Amino acid sequence: MMKIDILSLFPEMFEGFLNTSIIKRAIDAKVVEVNVHDFREFADNKHKKVDDYPYGGGQGMVLMCQPILDCLKTLVTKESLVILMSPQGQTLNQAYSQKLAHEQKHLIIICGHYEGFDERIRDYVDVELSIGDYVLTGGELASMVVCDSVIRLLEGAIRETSHEDDSFSDGLLEYPQYTRPYEYDGSVVPEVLMSGHHENIRKWRLHQSLLKTYRKRPDLLQNREFSEEELKILQEIQKND
Amino acid sequence: MMKIDILSLFPEMFEGFLNTSIIKRAIDAKVVEVNVHDFREFADNKHKKVDDYPYGGGQGMVLMCQPILDCLKTLVTKESLVILMSPQGQTLNQAYSQKLAHEQKHLIIICGHYEGFDERIRDYVDVELSIGDYVLTGGELASMVVCDSVIRLLEGAIRETSHEDDSFSDGLLEYPQYTRPYEYDGSVVPEVLMSGHHENIRKWRLHQSLLKTYRKRPDLLQNREFSEEELKILQEIQKND
Repeated sequence: MMKIDILSLFPEMFEGFLNTSIIKRAIDAKVVEVNVHDFREFADNKHKKVDDYPYGGGQGMVLMCQPILDCLKTLVTKESLVILMSPQGQTLNQAYSQKLAHEQKHLIIICGHYEGFDERIRDYVDVELSIGDYVLTGGELASMVVCDSVIRLLEGAIRETSHEDDSFSDGLLEYPQYTRPYEYDGSVVPEVLMSGHHENIRKWRLHQSLLKTYRKRPDLLQNREFSEEELKILQEIQKND
Repeated sequence: MMKIDILSLFPEMFEGFLNTSIIKRAIDAKVVEVNVHDFREFADNKHKKVDDYPYGGGQGMVLMCQPILDCLKTLVTKESLVILMSPQGQTLNQAYSQKLAHEQKHLIIICGHYEGFDERIRDYVDVELSIGDYVLTGGELASMVVCDSVIRLLEGAIRETSHEDDSFSDGLLEYPQYTRPYEYDGSVVPEVLMSGHHENIRKWRLHQSLLKTYRKRPDLLQNREFSEEELKILQEIQKND
């Protein structure tokens, strides 16, 4: 079972997330244990203050070392990977989520908030992680994104075969999906999907996956290795472009 | 006032988020109005079914056109920008959040869930947006990330000057911040920040910002225009590297 400890000033933000279908099911099935810790409780000053003015002046307040690090010390073991959510971290991607899901047993995730945190907190962290090049009001949503992407990959969380069709999991965007009705507002389902011809359907889907990726995210194709069949389709796509 | 309508099968997931300090304050101050709509209520079948098996076979269920699009039709106006959260969309970044915050009055955000949605839903969408190259169990967290990054940029949401120091807002990572105590666990605050010399502090921070970005995210420097002062510092950094 994976264990995830989250350090946050806003534990109540996590309630909705931890009660969502797939995450709740994974927790109930003991695939994962998630605990959210309010590090304000560890503040050793009278007013439970967790932040203070920045040295050298400037806007906003800075999270202090003591409350976060004292909280962290009660949780960390030899097996822990300490993650700090920060826009300065390496950017999360599917390969890294898979690495976390398959190689780690205990994640500790620190959520910053307000305008920033004391630089010295970085000395106690194994990995700094960002979910993308945008600024959020805090690390809470970012930490949920990490948890969500990792937990669904844990054995027993969702049907194993469901991962195989994920966008990115094979380095390509997913092919188009259609469900009933056959016609919606004048638009119909592609003929091949109605044919019952499994091999043609497989080929069409692979073609569509490659085509979508080529058009929308050509960067994903750059460092990917291709099968012979994929290479042939890709050359055809490029020829017709 | 900006208006945001979110279409989701899990409205309860948003409660914690909508009650967080900054977002709640922005809602209370009428900077933004956020409504979450359960599109299951729009399903025109007896069992309020929202998904069905994929044509052509395959794992999982596919969200149907009818419930989502009928819900959408009750909300959309000439001023709306219809956003579909999807791993296939363009990747959110700070510049795009700024564009949304400053140029749009009404965002409608559709959250997919389960394994996918009928391809024909894409025909009713203005923008497909992804928050990063990883797969989530649904679009809910992703839509909250979009809302959070946009709402904090709206006029009146947080102190205006707070944005200026954001990572990415000037194309650089933020400089290191320190707060009390002066010494923590043997590590002290850099001398310059104690000096009270504003110009030296400004220079040091600019140098640190450039240094951090150069080391951690050199890609951010590639398409950025630099001031003369920044260029000089950057050349110095490269020389010492």
